[in-house]
Amino acid sequence: MRFVDIIEKKREGCGLSTEEIRYWIQAYTAGDIPDYQVSALLMAIVLNGMDLRETTDLTMAMMHSGDVVDLSSIDGVKVDKHSTGGVGDKTTLALGPMVAACGVKMAKMSGRGLGHTGGTLDKLESIRGFNCFLDQETFIRQVNAIGLAVIGQSDRLVPADKKLYALRDVTATVASIPLIASSIMSKKLAAGTDVIDLDVKYGDGAFMQTPQEAVALAETMIQIGNSLGRRTRAMITDMNEPLGRAIGNALEVREAIDTLRGHGPEDFTELCLTAGSVLLTEAGASEDREKARKQLEAVIADGSALEKLRAMVKAQGGDVSQIDDPDRLPKADHVTPVLSRTTGYVKELRAMRLGTLAMQIGAGRATKEDEIWPEVGIVLNKKVADKVEKGEILAWVHHRKPLGSQWLKALEDGFVIVPEKVSRPDLIYKML
Amino acid sequence: MRFVDIIEKKREGCGLSTEEIRYWIQAYTAGDIPDYQVSALLMAIVLNGMDLRETTDLTMAMMHSGDVVDLSSIDGVKVDKHSTGGVGDKTTLALGPMVAACGVKMAKMSGRGLGHTGGTLDKLESIRGFNCFLDQETFIRQVNAIGLAVIGQSDRLVPADKKLYALRDVTATVASIPLIASSIMSKKLAAGTDVIDLDVKYGDGAFMQTPQEAVALAETMIQIGNSLGRRTRAMITDMNEPLGRAIGNALEVREAIDTLRGHGPEDFTELCLTAGSVLLTEAGASEDREKARKQLEAVIADGSALEKLRAMVKAQGGDVSQIDDPDRLPKADHVTPVLSRTTGYVKELRAMRLGTLAMQIGAGRATKEDEIWPEVGIVLNKKVADKVEKGEILAWVHHRKPLGSQWLKALEDGFVIVPEKVSRPDLIYKML
Repeated sequence: MRFVDIIEKKREGCGLSTEEIRYWIQAYTAGDIPDYQVSALLMAIVLNGMDLRETTDLTMAMMHSGDVVDLSSIDGVKVDKHSTGGVGDKTTLALGPMVAACGVKMAKMSGRGLGHTGGTLDKLESIRGFNCFLDQETFIRQVNAIGLAVIGQSDRLVPADKKLYALRDVTATVASIPLIASSIMSKKLAAGTDVIDLDVKYGDGAFMQTPQEAVALAETMIQIGNSLGRRTRAMITDMNEPLGRAIGNALEVREAIDTLRGHGPEDFTELCLTAGSVLLTEAGASEDREKARKQLEAVIADGSALEKLRAMVKAQGGDVSQIDDPDRLPKADHVTPVLSRTTGYVKELRAMRLGTLAMQIGAGRATKEDEIWPEVGIVLNKKVADKVEKGEILAWVHHRKPLGSQWLKALEDGFVIVPEKVSRPDLIYKML
Repeated sequence: MRFVDIIEKKREGCGLSTEEIRYWIQAYTAGDIPDYQVSALLMAIVLNGMDLRETTDLTMAMMHSGDVVDLSSIDGVKVDKHSTGGVGDKTTLALGPMVAACGVKMAKMSGRGLGHTGGTLDKLESIRGFNCFLDQETFIRQVNAIGLAVIGQSDRLVPADKKLYALRDVTATVASIPLIASSIMSKKLAAGTDVIDLDVKYGDGAFMQTPQEAVALAETMIQIGNSLGRRTRAMITDMNEPLGRAIGNALEVREAIDTLRGHGPEDFTELCLTAGSVLLTEAGASEDREKARKQLEAVIADGSALEKLRAMVKAQGGDVSQIDDPDRLPKADHVTPVLSRTTGYVKELRAMRLGTLAMQIGAGRATKEDEIWPEVGIVLNKKVADKVEKGEILAWVHHRKPLGSQWLKALEDGFVIVPEKVSRPDLIYKML
């Protein structure tokens, strides 16, 4: 098999065979095909597409490029959720404990943040002592014992994705449904859970710009997951404004704790209840989503969901006193309010810009080597559709270093304020 | 300027600016952009195209990636011709002397053969002692003295093309009019002549499969050449059957000598007269193509064209006794006739296959490192539309090593013989 012939086939818009896709992924992972040939193929895939059979083959080939986790020694149904990434997305921190408190086991492998989107591991590591790197035996024992563990993905899981993603990032070949779907699903499948709930985001802060694109991506992933025997569901959600109010690692942990105490932001709470009701139903722990929702509300009300977070933090070596008293979480030296220069209604709240601004003051990484400051970030006082008076606080900035005037100007410009009333956007566009 | 943004722009089907194209070529030639980014851009260009302004900018940027030859110290108009490559194409060997004998100076830089197409340098080097590597001063002095020189292209000419072509070859990004046009024209422009006649071939043995594609490529190259002040013309010619009868280096030199003596193959003679009449007219040595043709026929008839070949061979250190007596050219130990198994008419004579078969017995190179045997090759006894009796000779194979039965079978299959009469194909599809 000559790799140049495979590139040519895709260039001409033809489908690649299962063998050709397998050869590509195996040989590339082994270092036997140079990057410059693979990037040409990737661009041909971006422009000419791949059908569902090819995308499924690619997902399988990638999944088998490394270890596949065996969770069979965990009793019962194991669930996982995945978000395509957004700004202020701390869902795992609240959803995991809620679901586990309802008796459904969540065995989750997470990633770090890059660019304007945050990463669950970085958020958890703002808790003193929290250890994201358990060996597999400890991971499984913890899920069996308390129903919940969140750890970093092993380097031996889907090595093909690591290589491919690094190449796609520098060759403008990220934006492609078959490539995004196979990247996400190969990791979810390799992680070994029975149920997968996908949160596919669209809008300013997301990969997918429109709900239609998000639906297309979600449908592809659902078909792949279901065809390989995993119960896969998806919700299409709005990422035009950040999720909740907090952007930044310790700030988001605090917001998750608030939510588990029953007074989290409305949109974030709604997202957790919706995702949780899907997971409970698919795992067979509830008859329907209505009942599941009531169960989830109950474990918030009685404190057992918060107790699950506490149990996980304890099991993974974290300082539980920070969960009991969030004031003990890392705190910024400076908190600067940003005031509105005008009166009106918030029409847009640019998620990508806010995510990037938070990254710039230390809440995230521009490159993999950047250090994160856990205490910094942005807390929104106003969200889309809120009324704003001139001089009212739009947001608080938690920071370590002085803020530049350009940075503050950019933050203000992230709030688009108009004179006429604005209706509240629907967070959830569609359930699939 | 981030190169990934340039890739993304072309991926989205947008035009690249002059600055972006210049940056690409300069930085890539300097080794500052990795191959894997350039191959992604090349694939985006193959699939999304480039308009004429972009293609002209690319040609200019490539031309300026290395030395540009200054031929101003040669008196009068300098002409060049370029063929997009074919099987049995020894045009330069006959056309150069014909044109020079009519007083028009041809200063030509040629290449070597690769794959199924031969190279002029390899053909000339089958003449004992012939030196293709003159320094520029000697090259210019020779053109001034005898009106003709054919040398190898300097490594310092268009280094960007060398790098890009090597990358395109292994990434299935050869087939693209803007990339082919800029590759050819950057070299023609850097070579410094005033008049350029392009022979754009289509069919089985050519880059372009259809005459329509060949016209599109030719029109692009003509527009580039003319817009940069070179008188550029093109002819679109058929490469479904090999040009002339000889395929193989010394065999082709012999056929060129035969042609200069007035008894060359009809199609090859016609091509030389047509191309020569374009060059003479564009150089101002003839009023019109009709008169030019008569001048060219005259220099064949009076022996002065052959004398020019002799003068060039002498000037470049070659053994002129081989020109005077072509029996002294390298001769194969074995000449095997291939007989027809059937009676009928030759409908097809697959050029690509014949070129590849000749390469396999030593007339060409599969890789750049392969050695060429000058004496081997194929001489066609039958061409398309010829009547063939069963048992008649289709071709003679000149070889050094015994021929395999599979090879002979493949050669026979290169002749498609049908019962019904076949009309002779037009060699020249269009003049542009």
